[in-house]
Amino acid sequence: MIIQEISIAGSGNMAFYLARVFKRNNILVKKIISRNIDEVKRLAKICDAEYFSIDKVRDIEETLVLAVSDTAIEEVCEQLLQKIARKKFQSLLHTAGSTSIDVLEKFTDYPGVFYPFQTLKKDEEQVSSNIPIFIETRDAAYLEAVKKIANSISSNVYEMNSEDRKYLHLAAVFACNFSNHMYTLANEICNEISVDFSVMHHLIKKTIENAVELGPDKAQTGPAARGDSVVMNDHLNLLREMGKYDDIYKKISESIQGLIGKE
Amino acid sequence: MIIQEISIAGSGNMAFYLARVFKRNNILVKKIISRNIDEVKRLAKICDAEYFSIDKVRDIEETLVLAVSDTAIEEVCEQLLQKIARKKFQSLLHTAGSTSIDVLEKFTDYPGVFYPFQTLKKDEEQVSSNIPIFIETRDAAYLEAVKKIANSISSNVYEMNSEDRKYLHLAAVFACNFSNHMYTLANEICNEISVDFSVMHHLIKKTIENAVELGPDKAQTGPAARGDSVVMNDHLNLLREMGKYDDIYKKISESIQGLIGKE
Repeated sequence: MIIQEISIAGSGNMAFYLARVFKRNNILVKKIISRNIDEVKRLAKICDAEYFSIDKVRDIEETLVLAVSDTAIEEVCEQLLQKIARKKFQSLLHTAGSTSIDVLEKFTDYPGVFYPFQTLKKDEEQVSSNIPIFIETRDAAYLEAVKKIANSISSNVYEMNSEDRKYLHLAAVFACNFSNHMYTLANEICNEISVDFSVMHHLIKKTIENAVELGPDKAQTGPAARGDSVVMNDHLNLLREMGKYDDIYKKISESIQGLIGKE
Repeated sequence: MIIQEISIAGSGNMAFYLARVFKRNNILVKKIISRNIDEVKRLAKICDAEYFSIDKVRDIEETLVLAVSDTAIEEVCEQLLQKIARKKFQSLLHTAGSTSIDVLEKFTDYPGVFYPFQTLKKDEEQVSSNIPIFIETRDAAYLEAVKKIANSISSNVYEMNSEDRKYLHLAAVFACNFSNHMYTLANEICNEISVDFSVMHHLIKKTIENAVELGPDKAQTGPAARGDSVVMNDHLNLLREMGKYDDIYKKISESIQGLIGKE
């Protein structure tokens, strides 16, 4: 089994990433399908594909990559099957971290997952070829075909089942969404003293370097890690004066101390 | 007023950083003083200084930089004044983010703060010349002298008073110590599925790039930011199965949604 042609449903960040990276690696994208006709045009131009709004699609014989939000996967599949007057797709791949491969089973005999592990932005031309891609299928031959596509765009391809992928996505929420929220709160505190967040850049970059080099548990520093209750109380008082974030400061400090205490 | 010679009290991360960076920029370090005689020797060698244990110091006529922990500043000053049989130091600089310049007033007529804004490691040879340095004095001429030293080792020198510096330090706790704790929890979740934390590196680096480029508030993504309660409930269930971190997940998600809701 070889995947010779791909179509992409969607016109968001993931669809733009895939269109660019497939084009760059000479993987033929046949159609781009989306409700958003302006974006689908723009996207199709990037990878020399045909484009269709969902109600204008005639047939889909190739592998369809669902680059749509987790909650839209089933709806888009149902709408498209109605339009193309088939019972099932030839083969499918969804791209959602938290969604099981199971949701695709009623729509195809070849369900699959193709999950690039990165925060993607629509208009970003340059994308690293080392982005980890996590893949899953139910069929060995289909797995090899998907793996071939994945290997051609990334040097970090891993097989992972749906259950583990949910944990992976959860870990990503902590490592990225939640760490970003910590920057947001730091930014707000900087605003209090009219200091630009850019003074933090060095410190943030260094923190990551240390976490990557030593492991984040070994790299942990700060008043909570060293049990400095004088500084922590000072900080809580400043936050109470600001009228916010003292509860989250307390909660995270306790969590840090809980882990340190366990060692 | 010119600072012609400096001595450093301490033999921790900050003392090593200062010794290296002063040496590299031809700032004369006269003495290194610390209780830890092995480390003080090693440190003195780096910057061609004399070294003393605290009880062997005879006199300190030069500017003394206190590279000791926040809580040790007063104690070290008292011990040294006894030893050198002076009422006051000629001039002092402490290096602590959360400590007011006021603690130095009883020890010198020239109190000052010299706060390099970075996580420092003892054995790191290469240090960026762009590390922000926040300085404070009570005296205009002394300020110029301290600024001269700071400018010679960094292109980012800012004056900041003690009250604002406390907020800055608090912001750093969020941006670095707390974000690092988020990596630690991500790491633990990765351990659950036997995945190495290194798969997160790309994502973490990208998150920072976006936060720096767009501002962290604009860069916020994830299930909490987009109000995806299905994924959030899934995640909470996984954490409850792990028997930990569901409360911190909830708290931070609520905090993210609190900010989004405000816009």
